[in-house]
Amino acid sequence: MIETNETHDPGLRSWLDSANDDTLGFPVQNLPYCVFRRRGAQGGYHPGVGIGDQILDLNALAQAAPFSGDAARALAACRGSELNALMALGAPCWSALRLALSRGLRSGSPLQGTIEPLLVPQADAEYVVPARIGDYTDFYISLHHATAVGRQFRPDNPLLPNYKWVPIGYHGRASSIGVQQHFHRPVGQTRPTQEGGPPGFGPCERLDYEVELGVFVGTGNALGQRVPMDEAESHVFGLTVLNDWSARDVQAWEYQPLGPFLSKNFASTVSPWIVTLEALAPFRLPFQRGADDPQPLPYLASARNTAAGAFDVRLSTTLSTDTSRREGLAPAALSHSNFRDAYWTVSQLLAHHTVNGCNLQPGDLLGTGTLSGPTPAEAGSLLELTQGGKAALSLPWGETRTFLLDGDEVALGAECSKPGYPRISFGAAVGRILPARDLSYVV
Amino acid sequence: MIETNETHDPGLRSWLDSANDDTLGFPVQNLPYCVFRRRGAQGGYHPGVGIGDQILDLNALAQAAPFSGDAARALAACRGSELNALMALGAPCWSALRLALSRGLRSGSPLQGTIEPLLVPQADAEYVVPARIGDYTDFYISLHHATAVGRQFRPDNPLLPNYKWVPIGYHGRASSIGVQQHFHRPVGQTRPTQEGGPPGFGPCERLDYEVELGVFVGTGNALGQRVPMDEAESHVFGLTVLNDWSARDVQAWEYQPLGPFLSKNFASTVSPWIVTLEALAPFRLPFQRGADDPQPLPYLASARNTAAGAFDVRLSTTLSTDTSRREGLAPAALSHSNFRDAYWTVSQLLAHHTVNGCNLQPGDLLGTGTLSGPTPAEAGSLLELTQGGKAALSLPWGETRTFLLDGDEVALGAECSKPGYPRISFGAAVGRILPARDLSYVV
Repeated sequence: MIETNETHDPGLRSWLDSANDDTLGFPVQNLPYCVFRRRGAQGGYHPGVGIGDQILDLNALAQAAPFSGDAARALAACRGSELNALMALGAPCWSALRLALSRGLRSGSPLQGTIEPLLVPQADAEYVVPARIGDYTDFYISLHHATAVGRQFRPDNPLLPNYKWVPIGYHGRASSIGVQQHFHRPVGQTRPTQEGGPPGFGPCERLDYEVELGVFVGTGNALGQRVPMDEAESHVFGLTVLNDWSARDVQAWEYQPLGPFLSKNFASTVSPWIVTLEALAPFRLPFQRGADDPQPLPYLASARNTAAGAFDVRLSTTLSTDTSRREGLAPAALSHSNFRDAYWTVSQLLAHHTVNGCNLQPGDLLGTGTLSGPTPAEAGSLLELTQGGKAALSLPWGETRTFLLDGDEVALGAECSKPGYPRISFGAAVGRILPARDLSYVV
Repeated sequence: MIETNETHDPGLRSWLDSANDDTLGFPVQNLPYCVFRRRGAQGGYHPGVGIGDQILDLNALAQAAPFSGDAARALAACRGSELNALMALGAPCWSALRLALSRGLRSGSPLQGTIEPLLVPQADAEYVVPARIGDYTDFYISLHHATAVGRQFRPDNPLLPNYKWVPIGYHGRASSIGVQQHFHRPVGQTRPTQEGGPPGFGPCERLDYEVELGVFVGTGNALGQRVPMDEAESHVFGLTVLNDWSARDVQAWEYQPLGPFLSKNFASTVSPWIVTLEALAPFRLPFQRGADDPQPLPYLASARNTAAGAFDVRLSTTLSTDTSRREGLAPAALSHSNFRDAYWTVSQLLAHHTVNGCNLQPGDLLGTGTLSGPTPAEAGSLLELTQGGKAALSLPWGETRTFLLDGDEVALGAECSKPGYPRISFGAAVGRILPARDLSYVV
């Protein structure tokens, strides 16, 4: 999967004009997957592939059966309501379908007449989470994030001793993952104001976002079977953007000794789009450790990972509020960071997750954890940007924020770009905070 | 669901002789659910209900359609390969099916001729996990366990300040839950032998079991909707026995700051049987706090919970080894404990889990966490029984154990009993340790 092929030719153009519009980020070199339906349609959701400002309906294309071989097998797996069947088929089938779709969407394709009637405008679509997620695991792979957060608790010794050896991760909640979520502010227990006194209870007062990428597992592994480093990427279907919303005050009180629970499981938002690992091939980078960092243990190392295990994916966070939307203002940019600055790679996450025999399944989601960069402006959460709420952010329209207020809408984006190559967009993970629900039921 | 009804009459007897054998624990007052098929059958798995030494095939019974109303609806939901459809129907349907099955299996039932041909001997059955488990949550509700484990780390201050206020829980791995599991010893990183040095890596040397009950969620709740205390039990389908296998040396190195991960997700074993909450009604107890313990916050309290929120369920652990099985010896009893000694109730687990809006779904599994009792002999793990490996256990046939060795098989049982009432068994969660898989792939 490291190799590029004809689908990566930067000169490819589509017969669909909007695919050639670099501001959209959905060129024929991208071809990200989603699951969608036409807004308000009574029928079910089906897989689609993004091209320009349109979605190619893969269920409809499968009925036309324009492909043969592995591409036809892969397309036939797109007739359900989720991508799991396609994910389970494996990398050769994914690759064959990508090549067939690329050829069908290129300028001059004889399939234009077949495909064009099957396009649905993205503006008319509604989306669901593109896979049935059996298990959701969240990692913690930004050394910069771990250091910044650790410093708030342990100024002299911010990193725990295991951090540079273990790809720290924990299990999250699959049921509350959604796309374009509007969710109620969570309620919960918080630290007692007096030592030994009763805890607080009420709506979260330190509601935060976390900028992450999500890794969708394609093919799984049987219980007891490890996935070695050199096979890990063949199990990966693609990447999405993920917001792991966090209730910091709830987290601080509940997390010891078993980790975050209600502070993280009330909502997690993904982009509707999955960018395949194959589409990201032109944006691979060597995986490098700092001079002071230990080399990974052998089960987390491979020559291939060292040569090209990292990815140049730029992440961005914007915020709009009730005020900014009412006044028609553009959202405020809060931060940028890059996946290239992570301490572990995608392959290392899979190799670690399965070294004990744990089984992954098609559709499982692995979050990277907050992707913060080396400078303060590259912080991937408000916890970091505001120094734990001590330094309020000023928004361009005059409001300030330490943590999120009701009505706030956070959009996390990701993209790949470099000179001479079309821009690759991941779409956006968008969520908005609604007021906490009435608490009178408990009093 | 607190009330007992005619299905709880201790005088009820079945036309099936083995149902009246109190040593089996599957009387007509129990009627636990499973998903099974005849051993070696090519066909699919289907729901069944345990009676005596037999299983009533509910898929086959549904084809005979002997019931009407809610019982018929519930039975029709048993035609698939998992219990989720029945679970989603809700308590009135579960109750109607229980009553209809109870009447059909009683001595003198006119349905005996219909039902008798649909019985499959348990000795001829193979089982799978009875529900598709969307999310698995594990709690930590034994104060005695938390204190004993905490004492090993913090002798002067074993309990963290949140323990008596928060039903501590975390998300576990759903994919690796099974019945009657034979699994390979997990491999992983362990603490460095020298401070600042590289961690160890290899097969787990401190492999342990944890005696738990598992709560299967029946009806779920929508994202953002809390389940209040007085409605919580109507969302619970039933209870099973659960072994949350733990790699203690891996856990000690990996668990900070986000909790256990690879130390717990390589296997978790449940009994094939789910005992419904209705079957447990005769074994309810008041929920009581110690004189020094704070009362629960209002969202975790209800008069009904105080009156009858706890259950008298006795748990037991036995161990067999390669040696004991070769010599034909009975397994060794390691400990007994009781769910009545837990610090939180089933209702409190659901109310807490959803107070932030987290959505539960039919088939979700909530583990109680290790259920240890107030005396040392009631410890629900080897970590406690052997004081962290310092005091080896002597087995009756001359072997000793600190932690589990290859070939060891642990069987966790649970049952309810009281004078004048038939014994209610949960079956057993049985798992065996196979040697670690070859590690040469990483060197």
